[in-house]
Amino acid sequence: MGGDFGPRATVPAALAAMRKYPDLALILVGDGDVLRRALVAQGVPEGERLVVRHASQQVEMHDLPSQVLRKKKDSSMRVAVDLIKEGLAQACVSAGNTGALMAIAHFVLKTLPGIDRPAICTALPGVHGHTHMLDLGANVDSSSEELFQFAVMGSVLTSAVENKERPTVALLNIGEEEIKGNDRVKQTAALLAGSSLNYVGYVEGDDIFEGRVDVIVCDGFVGNIALKTAEGVARALVQFAREEFTRSTFTRMAALLSRPALRAVRKRLDPREYNGASLLGLRGIVIKSHGSADDLSFLRAIEEARLEIEKNVPERISQQLSAYLGTAQ
Amino acid sequence: MGGDFGPRATVPAALAAMRKYPDLALILVGDGDVLRRALVAQGVPEGERLVVRHASQQVEMHDLPSQVLRKKKDSSMRVAVDLIKEGLAQACVSAGNTGALMAIAHFVLKTLPGIDRPAICTALPGVHGHTHMLDLGANVDSSSEELFQFAVMGSVLTSAVENKERPTVALLNIGEEEIKGNDRVKQTAALLAGSSLNYVGYVEGDDIFEGRVDVIVCDGFVGNIALKTAEGVARALVQFAREEFTRSTFTRMAALLSRPALRAVRKRLDPREYNGASLLGLRGIVIKSHGSADDLSFLRAIEEARLEIEKNVPERISQQLSAYLGTAQ
Repeated sequence: MGGDFGPRATVPAALAAMRKYPDLALILVGDGDVLRRALVAQGVPEGERLVVRHASQQVEMHDLPSQVLRKKKDSSMRVAVDLIKEGLAQACVSAGNTGALMAIAHFVLKTLPGIDRPAICTALPGVHGHTHMLDLGANVDSSSEELFQFAVMGSVLTSAVENKERPTVALLNIGEEEIKGNDRVKQTAALLAGSSLNYVGYVEGDDIFEGRVDVIVCDGFVGNIALKTAEGVARALVQFAREEFTRSTFTRMAALLSRPALRAVRKRLDPREYNGASLLGLRGIVIKSHGSADDLSFLRAIEEARLEIEKNVPERISQQLSAYLGTAQ
Repeated sequence: MGGDFGPRATVPAALAAMRKYPDLALILVGDGDVLRRALVAQGVPEGERLVVRHASQQVEMHDLPSQVLRKKKDSSMRVAVDLIKEGLAQACVSAGNTGALMAIAHFVLKTLPGIDRPAICTALPGVHGHTHMLDLGANVDSSSEELFQFAVMGSVLTSAVENKERPTVALLNIGEEEIKGNDRVKQTAALLAGSSLNYVGYVEGDDIFEGRVDVIVCDGFVGNIALKTAEGVARALVQFAREEFTRSTFTRMAALLSRPALRAVRKRLDPREYNGASLLGLRGIVIKSHGSADDLSFLRAIEEARLEIEKNVPERISQQLSAYLGTAQ
């Protein structure tokens, strides 16, 4: 029920996913009347592969996670996560309130053995390929041990969904200081260098969108600010382009001719094209869709969930964490 | 002597500055032969307003700040900062190694009374105006007291160079957590709210390039990563545009017609257009030019130095720090 468009985006996305993947069965959780009306409008009946599960409440974007946990036990978000816990679903996809989703998922599913805190991970586009980055804001302060766990989780996810045997892992840092970075980053670097992860060293902020490393690890405070800064720059550029291309008849004509190319540029950086952030480190698969996702990009989030089910990402993280820790010690 | 272009950029910039500002006198510090040859090539003689000061060494981009301090006491950078200390110059502008410049400036000039650490501050372009942001990487870990001092420094600078009486000051934070941000950010917010600064609360990464607040404060680790991320996104977009506009004859033609508008867009985000970062909190004015500065953008850095001399920024910081601290306690 969440996101800017609610069922107008999620229902068409669900139907598209079912057409695309005959092995997929979906449970639509939310206001039963609204969802059934949406299905009728699309001319699709409920059935074995498509079930509506009514939930009487809804998490709003301004709801505080702690209050959602206490007071919204029949919200669509809570019910969807509960379905994983009960073994009735293998993954949950939501476009709603990120903080609430993380709190519910953490509370209901718990973290995997050996993982102290879950983290948010997403793929980002880059000049030479894309990069998985985590944590993007699940935590505000992370110890070097937690950052090391994030590195394992990011590496396992990337290895699983991209079929890369040994994804390269880098640590986000700054380059100005003599002995680069703060103590936590340096301690994490030592842990990574001593592990069997394919650790390649430090990268700086301008490497994120280069796409030369597979996984970039940072704490959630830094990751969230980097990601939002990137969104802000992209938005500013679009706004500047709009202003510059409407200055004269000549620029308006140029804009018209450039529209396909400009649209392609925009698409390559559009967060909706890379939709589907993973809440990693939980005993279950939870995918957060961007709130502004339309049906096509919500479909991307469903596909991410399906892929993580197929690759059994949570179990792989469990297994490999102990393997990597073994070599680190 | 520093930066990617050395005297090829700095000498023409110096001459342009002298033509533009009849009150300006400049000392060019560096390899005397090289500098004098550059002046001869431009047909300009040395004189009262334009002096060459020879320095036998040069700081390289890979030099470690601590080694520069010990072993490069006759480098152009060190000599230029020494001139301020000796009262022979009122400001220093350099396009060289940022870490070395900060180390030399800190060591030679010392911080102002009440300022624990200097910070790097620059103006950034935004949709609705520009924003001064600090610290951009002088420090990797800052206490809430230091962040408060940064806020005062940023506010004083903005007030002085933009003639704004009460610049708005915001704190960079993330939005996902229930009780937003980490402890340091929250403690800083309390200090700011209790001061007479025009504190307007938290902003997120995507607000940096909105340009709705005058000053954004963050620690140097976060600030450096945000700034470099922005540069990376802009570079990726330029690369994507290059690829998309060369796909076909049609897009090549569109690109040709769009060139003026695209160039204008790029110019509005180009760091060289906002060249001249201030090393704030020192007993003297030191301006860091972007390493890739050409003559026009190095001129911008000289103009920043001139403006800070005119407005007496270091003394203002001293005065106002005690005033703001007075109200905070």
